[in-house]
Amino acid sequence: MLQSKLFTKTLREAPKDEESVNAKLLTRGGYIYKNSAGVYSFLPLGWRVIKKIADIIREEMNAVGGEEIFMPALVEKKYWDATNRWNVPVGYEVFGKNEDETSFILGWSHEDLLTAMVTKFINSYKDLPFSAYQIQTKFRNEPRAKSGLLRGKEFMMKDLYSFHTDEADLNKYYERVAKAYHKIFKRCGLKSIYTLAAGGDFTTGNTHEFQVLSDVGEDTIYVCEKCGYAENNEISKLKDEGPCSRCRGKINAHKAIEVGNIFPLGTKYSKAVNLKFKDKNGEEKLVVMGSYGIGLGRVMGTIVEVYNDERGLIWPEQVAPFKVHLIELAGSSAKKIYEKLRKLGIEVLYDERDISAGAKFSDADLIGLPYRVVVSPKTGKKFELKKRSSKAIKLVSEAELIKLLKS
Amino acid sequence: MLQSKLFTKTLREAPKDEESVNAKLLTRGGYIYKNSAGVYSFLPLGWRVIKKIADIIREEMNAVGGEEIFMPALVEKKYWDATNRWNVPVGYEVFGKNEDETSFILGWSHEDLLTAMVTKFINSYKDLPFSAYQIQTKFRNEPRAKSGLLRGKEFMMKDLYSFHTDEADLNKYYERVAKAYHKIFKRCGLKSIYTLAAGGDFTTGNTHEFQVLSDVGEDTIYVCEKCGYAENNEISKLKDEGPCSRCRGKINAHKAIEVGNIFPLGTKYSKAVNLKFKDKNGEEKLVVMGSYGIGLGRVMGTIVEVYNDERGLIWPEQVAPFKVHLIELAGSSAKKIYEKLRKLGIEVLYDERDISAGAKFSDADLIGLPYRVVVSPKTGKKFELKKRSSKAIKLVSEAELIKLLKS
Repeated sequence: MLQSKLFTKTLREAPKDEESVNAKLLTRGGYIYKNSAGVYSFLPLGWRVIKKIADIIREEMNAVGGEEIFMPALVEKKYWDATNRWNVPVGYEVFGKNEDETSFILGWSHEDLLTAMVTKFINSYKDLPFSAYQIQTKFRNEPRAKSGLLRGKEFMMKDLYSFHTDEADLNKYYERVAKAYHKIFKRCGLKSIYTLAAGGDFTTGNTHEFQVLSDVGEDTIYVCEKCGYAENNEISKLKDEGPCSRCRGKINAHKAIEVGNIFPLGTKYSKAVNLKFKDKNGEEKLVVMGSYGIGLGRVMGTIVEVYNDERGLIWPEQVAPFKVHLIELAGSSAKKIYEKLRKLGIEVLYDERDISAGAKFSDADLIGLPYRVVVSPKTGKKFELKKRSSKAIKLVSEAELIKLLKS
Repeated sequence: MLQSKLFTKTLREAPKDEESVNAKLLTRGGYIYKNSAGVYSFLPLGWRVIKKIADIIREEMNAVGGEEIFMPALVEKKYWDATNRWNVPVGYEVFGKNEDETSFILGWSHEDLLTAMVTKFINSYKDLPFSAYQIQTKFRNEPRAKSGLLRGKEFMMKDLYSFHTDEADLNKYYERVAKAYHKIFKRCGLKSIYTLAAGGDFTTGNTHEFQVLSDVGEDTIYVCEKCGYAENNEISKLKDEGPCSRCRGKINAHKAIEVGNIFPLGTKYSKAVNLKFKDKNGEEKLVVMGSYGIGLGRVMGTIVEVYNDERGLIWPEQVAPFKVHLIELAGSSAKKIYEKLRKLGIEVLYDERDISAGAKFSDADLIGLPYRVVVSPKTGKKFELKKRSSKAIKLVSEAELIKLLKS
């Protein structure tokens, strides 16, 4: 894409009303725009990142047999009443103009609605197991909306729900999804720690979180140095530097960011809506369920918290809005190599603007694409190649450049 | 995909609380599920159709230079106040639990929010023109929600907004988008009629609708037989069977479905938020705008209204959830050809369920995929091929089948 066509502009200064590194850098880079506290727009560069994260999630959810669906945000009172969640404080109520009573709460999770729907489709054990997921916008009345994309009033979430004949089948699938989650985060450049946690408004039993180590996280987790076992602070009986209850290894406390969570729901929701199936003997039994969430904006915000320096963003390649920032300096043209790279399917942001070299370089550092390629009168027929994550600058031929960028 | 894995089931009877053909057939086929009046979930088959429509729209919007973004549904009071649209009756108000006052209305259109945002990015005539679009969920408090996907309280919409230095540049772009719209609808199997209309809550001038002829539409339009000029009933001075004001041709009245609309907004919104640019002489001028909408669910519902028969749906190929319904009858296996077609990138729904041939055939007619391929002991090494839109059945070899389906 031609950078002159991008309708956003980078900002020199961070917005004064943002505290978090992710919101400051993403706003300065023209990735996001804060419309209200906890409410953001994704601008062209930011939306490209979200779509890449969504594609990675979709691939891994399809690989575990998830069927993609799309549920509404307007969830009627009857669904919340059935599961006794109408009064959960995070719910936003919706009123039509001139209406005295609400009949909807904006979906902050979709166990209630989906469980009611699948009662129409499940009769026999032959209809199980299955799983369905969506990538859809959730709404939560969130007073602590100061962490940029890490905690919003409105945010895009992938929520997967699974349905089983028994606990054993759920547990098998739960492990499979846990592996898929680690894979998703790894592909996004994040190392996730599988952490035992409480159930919140979802279930009474224990659940699991996927935590990424970072100084800015809202959570404290206790992780064993030796076996990797981890618990979050809400439930942990482990102590900092104390011995691990499993292997007697040393426990370390860390502030961390939760990027995903998975819940073995058991029969909590199936009981509420009478979601039953007939087993092989014709006996009626309650369906056993799990649910599995990932916040897409939260993943994006976490990547920024982990990958940045004083000059700006440093995107991992798989989620970068473009792979290459192609910079043309005065007295040269990068048009030919731009067209060549594009034809090879390499995503290039081509800075052909009539501004100073310094301004182009600082924009490239701020925007943070993985590779910077400079074409200038000084480089002649060669290209100056620099990774955003390193300081080394190489002078390469066109053939070398193409070989490197194609790999 | 294996049909046994699909968690939805077809229904023999249409739901009693649906009046429209699109809602009846899409519900029976397992494409959609009504959660509340005017509020639907898209199930796996239905979501595949929406994604295909979205891909077509995205391609054509990118082709006219639209940059994809994503704006929030929570639109704060200050944005609506600036454009004097806070009290438009279609707006849904949002309250946090225990809050006395609302500060948000769910976005039913996004001129207000986007125009306020772009004031940060536009300074000079050099920053213009540009256009940005999103595919995002809109909310409208809609009492007449009886037409299935044609009119919902919550619906997915593509909204494009364009920004220009003057009316002439807007008009040029407006014509370009009109052409892109005709192309989008054509690719979806719909013939759209460009129809002069009023501006509603968007603008005071005239606008244009894209209307599809159908018996079930809410709109009446007046169309000239000879020159094709059309006006909708809200503004038309033309009369049924009267002479066309342009060419004196015969005018016919039709009930029609509006599938898209485009609005030359002028300076209505830029004036409201003081969105100005400096022209070549350094003079400050108001930005001139246009906006352009397509409802994705409405397009899907319209396709169903146009393409159906007494047995079910008849999808045009470009928007069908799968291209081929592969039916395996008792005593045969279609597994090999299923794998072959899949490897060729042909989308196949493979009915390997242990149910009667009659049930499989009526499901295939109801679901309405473009090609039905039957493998049975009777057909031997050949395949029985039938188009959903025709009655003719052909017996073809594997090579012929692949050649036909690949084209």
